[in-house]
Amino acid sequence: MNKIEHIGIAVADLKAAGDLYEKLLNTPVYKIEEVATEGVKTAFLQSGPNKVELLEASNPDSPIAKFIAKKGEGIHHIAFEVDDINAEMARLKNEGFILLSDEPKRGADNKLVCFVHPKSAGGVLVELCQSIAQENL
Amino acid sequence: MNKIEHIGIAVADLKAAGDLYEKLLNTPVYKIEEVATEGVKTAFLQSGPNKVELLEASNPDSPIAKFIAKKGEGIHHIAFEVDDINAEMARLKNEGFILLSDEPKRGADNKLVCFVHPKSAGGVLVELCQSIAQENL
Repeated sequence: MNKIEHIGIAVADLKAAGDLYEKLLNTPVYKIEEVATEGVKTAFLQSGPNKVELLEASNPDSPIAKFIAKKGEGIHHIAFEVDDINAEMARLKNEGFILLSDEPKRGADNKLVCFVHPKSAGGVLVELCQSIAQENL
Repeated sequence: MNKIEHIGIAVADLKAAGDLYEKLLNTPVYKIEEVATEGVKTAFLQSGPNKVELLEASNPDSPIAKFIAKKGEGIHHIAFEVDDINAEMARLKNEGFILLSDEPKRGADNKLVCFVHPKSAGGVLVELCQSIAQENL
């Protein structure tokens, strides 16, 4: 895995959280994007080679709404960049990790993504993400 | 802030978690270090420019023991690298963030560190860390 691509943080109010993290990280929110299929609205901030992704639920059944109801606002997942998500999914399955989808899904920020079940990863929701080549967008 | 320096993950058993994360990240634990003043034993894995820090409580009063008792194993904090920790602490105080110490403290991995209270940072325990110059170690 190449690097921590981003940290996902569950927030109740994307605008308020965006303002807070802009002050905290001393850098602006550079993109806001809704991923309707996942029930989330996202805001991104850059920190060198890494990103912080703020996640607000866009409907009451969103995984983010459930997360906040159970645990409150806070770190939701950690995403690692990979070059070949299909190869990495196969490697992890072979090592006994439980993946949340059989195929990569389309995520925010022009990525193909797959999540590893926290039960098989020490309580951490791990995301793999691979950038989609510009010509395939 | 320059980058995500590391993600800190609270674990019950450093050896077992080290084995698990070596498989997950496909990279070896490259350092194990105890920080007695913080009540933690740590193991580090590299992911490109970033690190994953596994944290095991080294005594029952450790903040990690309390975290696991309350929330279970999982992501404990996110650390950002800064060039001048004193300047960054002053900036954050001025922005209204609550810092957990008035002065930087000595952390693992040859760092000066300071934590921002999760109550002032959207439920996230944020660490600032500055590398200590080789000649000052």
